[in-house]
Amino acid sequence: MPQGRPIAVPDDGLSTRARRNQPVLAVHTGAGKGKSTAAFGMALRAWNAGLDVAVFQFVKSAKWKVGEENAFRELGTLHDEHGTGGAVEWHKMGSGWSWSRRQGDEADHAAAAAEGWAEIARRLAEERHGFYVLDEFTYPLKWGWVDVDAVVETLRSRPGTQHVVITGRDAPAPLIEAADLVTEMAKVRHPMDAGRKGQRGIEW
Amino acid sequence: MPQGRPIAVPDDGLSTRARRNQPVLAVHTGAGKGKSTAAFGMALRAWNAGLDVAVFQFVKSAKWKVGEENAFRELGTLHDEHGTGGAVEWHKMGSGWSWSRRQGDEADHAAAAAEGWAEIARRLAEERHGFYVLDEFTYPLKWGWVDVDAVVETLRSRPGTQHVVITGRDAPAPLIEAADLVTEMAKVRHPMDAGRKGQRGIEW
Repeated sequence: MPQGRPIAVPDDGLSTRARRNQPVLAVHTGAGKGKSTAAFGMALRAWNAGLDVAVFQFVKSAKWKVGEENAFRELGTLHDEHGTGGAVEWHKMGSGWSWSRRQGDEADHAAAAAEGWAEIARRLAEERHGFYVLDEFTYPLKWGWVDVDAVVETLRSRPGTQHVVITGRDAPAPLIEAADLVTEMAKVRHPMDAGRKGQRGIEW
Repeated sequence: MPQGRPIAVPDDGLSTRARRNQPVLAVHTGAGKGKSTAAFGMALRAWNAGLDVAVFQFVKSAKWKVGEENAFRELGTLHDEHGTGGAVEWHKMGSGWSWSRRQGDEADHAAAAAEGWAEIARRLAEERHGFYVLDEFTYPLKWGWVDVDAVVETLRSRPGTQHVVITGRDAPAPLIEAADLVTEMAKVRHPMDAGRKGQRGIEW
């Protein structure tokens, strides 16, 4: 039950309101469940506040997270048709980024990941969205497909009040350093330990 | 990137499908952010799969999580009017449980919490919903307002394939023992450490 009481007030000359409206960079990492799911939960809240939400999934398979995608597409329709909540965009690397001419080409994941990040950096510069989910983005960082320092620099200098949430295991240290909010999801117990496979409505 | 590969297959005589359709009891605990948010993300997925979703918030304040509540009410309307997704119910202890005659009486939180759990137990017995979120339910357990052993017994013996997610810090050991999926959200860094207060679209 959050009480909204800061444990320390920084000497930065900002009013509470000015500080409150600062953009948030959040990282959900760790080996447990809930990293992406919590990011989508945050996006739900952002959508309700009227922020434009853009999701970029750096994943191969189109199967996972289709539940969230469908639900957010419905929310996007509510915005488009009734003006409720924010607009929603959902982009996937696995099936080829929607804006890319290389659509459907899954051969070069490294290039596709770099292209995804380049597009996000452009949109951040333009202040295109209010809330970005960079789902499973730690993997391209970990594998060196996208340069961590460049990402951190772009995120640190992004204009306006654009919120960004990045998910995935093994978030690199410079990213954690740069983040305002870092949560580690630790696995305590998982159904797959007991030989249970994923099921619709729970896993996707 | 989940691969859906169990690390061990139990000798329980069940087929993968039978095992897959077992009801899940998940617990999100720990001092970090994302416990409730991930539960609502799971509920989003369940809604998309057509499961009826019921949220029971064991919290005092009506302010927090209003973003998620609004978004889910919109999703519930999509179900009611267009048959998209599952039905949605959202019940809050703080403003008096919707079914209770003691509405608005916030004086006795212990009694209200016990009443909330009694209603959930009734609904589980009737298989009323497909997916239950018991948000911040660990607190009434921790404070002894609701008996942990009775809760665990009811959850263990619940009929059908009703999924239940329980959130909150300090989940009691018997509940963790009974759960299929336990994630501990650990705080690594939080904006309030830097004197920032919550903001709309991020915190609620």
